[in-house]
Amino acid sequence: MGLRFGPDYPEQTYIKHAYPEHLVDLGDVKMNYAVAGDASLPALLLIPGQSESWWGYEQAMPLLAKNFHVHAVDLRGQGRSSRTPGRYTLDNMGNDLVRFIDIVIKRPTFVSGLSSGGVLSAWLSAYAKPAQIIGAHYEDPPLFHSEVDTSCGQSLRQGVGSMFALWSKYLGDQWSIGDWEGMKAAAPTELLPWIAAAFPQSDEPPQNLKEYDPEWARAFHTGTVAASCDHARMLQSVKVPVLFTHHFRRVDESSGFLMGALSDVQAARAKELVTSAGQPFDYKSFPAMAHSMHGQDPNLFAATLIEWAKTLL
Amino acid sequence: MGLRFGPDYPEQTYIKHAYPEHLVDLGDVKMNYAVAGDASLPALLLIPGQSESWWGYEQAMPLLAKNFHVHAVDLRGQGRSSRTPGRYTLDNMGNDLVRFIDIVIKRPTFVSGLSSGGVLSAWLSAYAKPAQIIGAHYEDPPLFHSEVDTSCGQSLRQGVGSMFALWSKYLGDQWSIGDWEGMKAAAPTELLPWIAAAFPQSDEPPQNLKEYDPEWARAFHTGTVAASCDHARMLQSVKVPVLFTHHFRRVDESSGFLMGALSDVQAARAKELVTSAGQPFDYKSFPAMAHSMHGQDPNLFAATLIEWAKTLL
Amino acid sequence: MGLRFGPDYPEQTYIKHAYPEHLVDLGDVKMNYAVAGDASLPALLLIPGQSESWWGYEQAMPLLAKNFHVHAVDLRGQGRSSRTPGRYTLDNMGNDLVRFIDIVIKRPTFVSGLSSGGVLSAWLSAYAKPAQIIGAHYEDPPLFHSEVDTSCGQSLRQGVGSMFALWSKYLGDQWSIGDWEGMKAAAPTELLPWIAAAFPQSDEPPQNLKEYDPEWARAFHTGTVAASCDHARMLQSVKVPVLFTHHFRRVDESSGFLMGALSDVQAARAKELVTSAGQPFDYKSFPAMAHSMHGQDPNLFAATLIEWAKTLL
Amino acid sequence: MGLRFGPDYPEQTYIKHAYPEHLVDLGDVKMNYAVAGDASLPALLLIPGQSESWWGYEQAMPLLAKNFHVHAVDLRGQGRSSRTPGRYTLDNMGNDLVRFIDIVIKRPTFVSGLSSGGVLSAWLSAYAKPAQIIGAHYEDPPLFHSEVDTSCGQSLRQGVGSMFALWSKYLGDQWSIGDWEGMKAAAPTELLPWIAAAFPQSDEPPQNLKEYDPEWARAFHTGTVAASCDHARMLQSVKVPVLFTHHFRRVDESSGFLMGALSDVQAARAKELVTSAGQPFDYKSFPAMAHSMHGQDPNLFAATLIEWAKTLL
Repeated sequence: MGLRFGPDYPEQTYIKHAYPEHLVDLGDVKMNYAVAGDASLPALLLIPGQSESWWGYEQAMPLLAKNFHVHAVDLRGQGRSSRTPGRYTLDNMGNDLVRFIDIVIKRPTFVSGLSSGGVLSAWLSAYAKPAQIIGAHYEDPPLFHSEVDTSCGQSLRQGVGSMFALWSKYLGDQWSIGDWEGMKAAAPTELLPWIAAAFPQSDEPPQNLKEYDPEWARAFHTGTVAASCDHARMLQSVKVPVLFTHHFRRVDESSGFLMGALSDVQAARAKELVTSAGQPFDYKSFPAMAHSMHGQDPNLFAATLIEWAKTLL
Repeated sequence: MGLRFGPDYPEQTYIKHAYPEHLVDLGDVKMNYAVAGDASLPALLLIPGQSESWWGYEQAMPLLAKNFHVHAVDLRGQGRSSRTPGRYTLDNMGNDLVRFIDIVIKRPTFVSGLSSGGVLSAWLSAYAKPAQIIGAHYEDPPLFHSEVDTSCGQSLRQGVGSMFALWSKYLGDQWSIGDWEGMKAAAPTELLPWIAAAFPQSDEPPQNLKEYDPEWARAFHTGTVAASCDHARMLQSVKVPVLFTHHFRRVDESSGFLMGALSDVQAARAKELVTSAGQPFDYKSFPAMAHSMHGQDPNLFAATLIEWAKTLL
Repeated sequence: MGLRFGPDYPEQTYIKHAYPEHLVDLGDVKMNYAVAGDASLPALLLIPGQSESWWGYEQAMPLLAKNFHVHAVDLRGQGRSSRTPGRYTLDNMGNDLVRFIDIVIKRPTFVSGLSSGGVLSAWLSAYAKPAQIIGAHYEDPPLFHSEVDTSCGQSLRQGVGSMFALWSKYLGDQWSIGDWEGMKAAAPTELLPWIAAAFPQSDEPPQNLKEYDPEWARAFHTGTVAASCDHARMLQSVKVPVLFTHHFRRVDESSGFLMGALSDVQAARAKELVTSAGQPFDYKSFPAMAHSMHGQDPNLFAATLIEWAKTLL
Repeated sequence: MGLRFGPDYPEQTYIKHAYPEHLVDLGDVKMNYAVAGDASLPALLLIPGQSESWWGYEQAMPLLAKNFHVHAVDLRGQGRSSRTPGRYTLDNMGNDLVRFIDIVIKRPTFVSGLSSGGVLSAWLSAYAKPAQIIGAHYEDPPLFHSEVDTSCGQSLRQGVGSMFALWSKYLGDQWSIGDWEGMKAAAPTELLPWIAAAFPQSDEPPQNLKEYDPEWARAFHTGTVAASCDHARMLQSVKVPVLFTHHFRRVDESSGFLMGALSDVQAARAKELVTSAGQPFDYKSFPAMAHSMHGQDPNLFAATLIEWAKTLL
C-alpha cells in the first residue's frame, strides 16, 4: 500500500497557513479560498499553477493587499477543493471561476494566474460572463506548450510532459497508488535527462504535491484537459486587456526541446492572436525569472501587477 | 458547392415564429430565446433536443404559459445561437444554461429538456449552481445511449449513431459541405436498415436541420460531447427531484440494437443512480409516444409537467 | 519499489515446463514456443489467451499430439516472448503469427486460440496470407465484447473491463509499478462487485500473471488493441471454415452486464457475418464450461478439435 | 452527387502506363505492382508517397533497371490496390510489404520509399522479417512531422496537416463525397496561407488524386496511421544500413511552421536514433530539390541510389 493524501486523509495532508480558509459551494464543486485586503479596493483573483495551492501566493498576498481585495483559490483537484474524477478540463475549471466571481467576489475583477492557472486566466479573458473581468495577467502560461497536438511550437511531450506522465503513473488518480519510492527510482529512466536531473528526491512528498490530485497530470499528459478548448481559438476570443509575463525559457538547439513554460515563438503567436482580437497585450520578458515570480520574487510580482492594473482603472 | 445554412446565411435559414426572439450575451456565446407567460408564475426553462430549435416548443408554450413563466432557448449550435467550432460539450452547453438562468431568469427554475436537451436537464440537476434548479424533467433522454463507450446498455453506435455519422459527413461542420443529394444517396448503404427506412428524402432540408450545426452530430459520433462527462457519474451527483418520461423504445432481439432514446435497462439504471443520490425519481412510461411528446402531444406534455411541478411547489 | 517480473528478471519469473522451449526471431519480435507431436501429422497452432502463456496448453498438448504436429506460442507480451511497448495491437500480433507460420510451421495449419487468442484466430481466418490457414477454432473469444466502442452488445466496460483497468493501474506497463498489495486492497472499490468477489487474493502473483505484460491490459482497456481492427469488418473477411465453442455466459437482467466472453447475441452476430462471407461456422455451446476448456477439460477440448479438423482433411 | 473514383469506378479512374501491371493476393489485400529490369540483378522495392501510385516512378524505373530488378507497388489505398476502410496504419502497410517481398520478390531486397513511403522504408528497416532488407533508402520522409503528438519538432498540424484535413473532408473516405468544387472554394479559408497559395485549382482532380483513397488523409490527420507506431521507437529498432536524402525544407521563423517533409532538427534526431541502434546512416542534403527527387530529377535519384547500393553489395 502506497502513500495516501487528499481530502479523504486531511490530517496527513493539510497544514496551517497565514490566512483563514473558506469553502464555498459552487454546485459542481466546493472551492477553498483565502482573502486579503480591504473590500473597498479593486478585486483581484489569483489562480495557482499545477501542483500549487492558494498558499503559493502567501508571500505575495500582503503586498497585493495594499492595492487589491485579494482572493486566492484552490482549483478543483488542488488543496482543499473538491476532487472531480474524469472531469478535469479547462472549460470546467474556467466555469468554476466564473461561478466563484459571481458568488464570492460579486463584481468585476482583475485576474492573475500562474502556469496552468495562467491558461485559465486566458480562458477567463475569453470566455467569462460579460463584465466579469477587468483585465487578465498571464504569469508564464504554457500556452500551446500544454497542448498535446498543438498548433504552434513544442507540444507538452517536447518539454515537461514526461514529468506529468511519471506523476500520473506512480501517484495515481487521487493518490490511489502513492508509490513515492517507485517514482524516484523510475525518474532517471522515464524522464527526459534535463528533467530527471532536477527531479526532487526528498524522502516524502513536498507539501504542495500532497495537496495535488495526480489526475491533473493524467489530464494534461493525455490531452483531455484541453480536448475541447483549442488554445489558438481561445486567444482569438480574448475580450479584455492582457498582461503577459514571460519567464525563463530555453530551446535546446539540437533536440528542439523546450525548457520553460513557452517559447518566444509561442509567446509571439499568443500576442498576435490577442492583438488581432482587438485587445492590448502588454508583454514583459523576465528571462532570468523562475516559473513562479510570485513565489520567487513577490515584490517584483506585486509591483508589476499593480503598475499594470493602474493603467486600467 | 453545396447548400449553405446558419447564422452567416440568415435569409435562407430562418423563418418567423409565433413568439418574439431575443439574443442575450453570455460571454462565451450569444443565446437566442423566446418567452411566454407571466413573470409572476414559477420559472420554467425548456431545452430542445438535437436538431431542434426553441420553436419545437411552439405548440406547448401557450399551454405551459398558464402555469409557468416559460423560457425556451436555442443551445449553442442551434437556431440563432452562436456556433462554437471545437467546443460542443455537455459541460459547455450546461454552463451556458447556468449563465442563462443567472442573467435572464434570475431565480430558481424548473427545467425540462428533450433528448440531448434531456441529458442537459440531467446535467443541470447535478452540476448547476446551488438553488438554481427546483426540479428537472428529463424528456426521453438518451442517457448512456448517447455515450460512445457507455457503462450501461447500447452505445450510440448500437442505435441511431450511423445517422449522426451521415449528417456529419455530408453536411459538414457549420454546413461547410452541404451535400444534401449525396446524403440521401448514401443513406441506404451507410445507415442501419431500420434507420435508412425512415430517413427523410425531401428535396431540401427541413427547417429544423437548416438551423442545426452538423458539428453537433460529429461531437456525438466521435464522443467528444461527453468525453469528460460520464453519464453514470453525473447521475450519481443529482441534487434535485427528477421527472423522467420514457417514450417509445424497442430492443431488436436478434441484433441487440436499440430503437428509441434509451432501453428499459438504461432507464432503470438511471433511476437507481438518482435514487441512490437521495433524490425522488418520478418515472412515467409512455411506450407508444414519439420521441418528442411536446411536439406530438403538447397537451399531454403540458399536463404531465404541470402536475409534477405542483408536487414541488 | 514494487514487484518486478518479465524477461528482464528471468530468475524470479520463469519456471520449467514439460516441453522444451524455443525462441525464433521474427524480425519485429522474438517468439517463444513449444512443439509436440510428429511432423508428419497435420499442423496445429495454439494461441493462448490474455494472461496465459503457451504452457496453458500443457495438459492438452499430449492429447492433441496424437493427431497434430502441435505448436503452442507465447504472443508478444506473454511468457518469454518480446515486450513491445506501445505496439500491442491485434494487427501486430496477428502478423507475428503469419510470420511464425511462414518461418517455423512452413505449411498450411489449423489454428485454435482462446479468448484474445480466439480473436487472433479470427484475425488469421480473415487476414493471413493465402493458404496459410486450413480452418480456425475460436475458443470462447470475446468478439465484440473486447471492443471499447463495439458494434454489437456489451463493450468491455460492461463486463470484465474493470479488471483490465485494475491490472494496468497497479501493475504498470512491463511490471513497472508492481503494487500487488495495493491492487488487492483496491479490488473491492475499483472492480464491479461480481468481479471483485472472484478476484484472487493470493500473497504473490500467480505464475501466469508473472509472465504477462500488464500493458496488454492497458491496450484493451483504452481500446488501442483493436483501434484499427473493427471486429465486424474482420468477421466479414473470414476466408476459411470456423469452429466456434461458446462457454459459460450470463447476462445480468437488471444491469445488462455480461459475465463470460461473449453473449448469445454477439455469438449469433459473429455467425451471421462469417456465414455471409461464405464460410462454414460450426457453433458448439458448452454453457457450463469454464473460459478455458483446454485447461478445464483437456480431453473434451482435444476431442472437439480433432473431430472438427477431420471434417476438413 | 460528387465525383466518384477508385477501384469501383475503373473506367473513369485508371489510365494506361509504360509497364504492365500485376495484381498479387497477399491475403489481407490485393496489391498492384509493376516490374522492370533483369531478375539476375539485385532486387529493389519502390514505395510511392501519399497520393502517388507506382507509376510516379515511371521515369526512374528504366534508369534503375540497369542495376536492379525493380518492383514498384501501389500501397493499400493507392492505385489499383485494395481499399481497406478503418485499417490504414503503418503497421498494416508495412506488413503488406513484408508479404510482398515473401511472395513476389522472394529474396533480400533494397528498398526505397518517398515521403509516407519513406516512413514505410524506415518501418521495413526496423520491423521486417530477418534478412528481407539489404538496406533502406528514406527519400525525404516526414519522420516525426507526420505524427500528431510527435516527440520531436513540428507535428503534422504545424505543416501540411491542413491539406490532409481538407482532402479528407471534401473528398471523403473512398471518394464518398467527391466535392471537388467545394474543396477548391474552401482552400483559401481552411488551409494555412502558404499551402493555400500552392493549392491546385484544376477543373478536375489530377490523375494521382483519382487513384488515391482520401481515407489516407483522415488516417494521418487524426493520427490513427501511427497510433501504435511511434517514430522514435521505430528508429531505435533499425537493423540495416540507411540512406537518407533530405530535400527542400524551411522553418518559418515567426510561426515555427515547417515547409517541407522534415526539419534539420528532425533529420538529426533520426540520424542519432539510427546510429545509436548501430546502423550506418548516410545523410545527403539536397536543399533545392522538390519533395520527389525520383519525379523531379530521375537521373540524380537513380545515380544516388545506385552509388549507395554498391557500397552494400
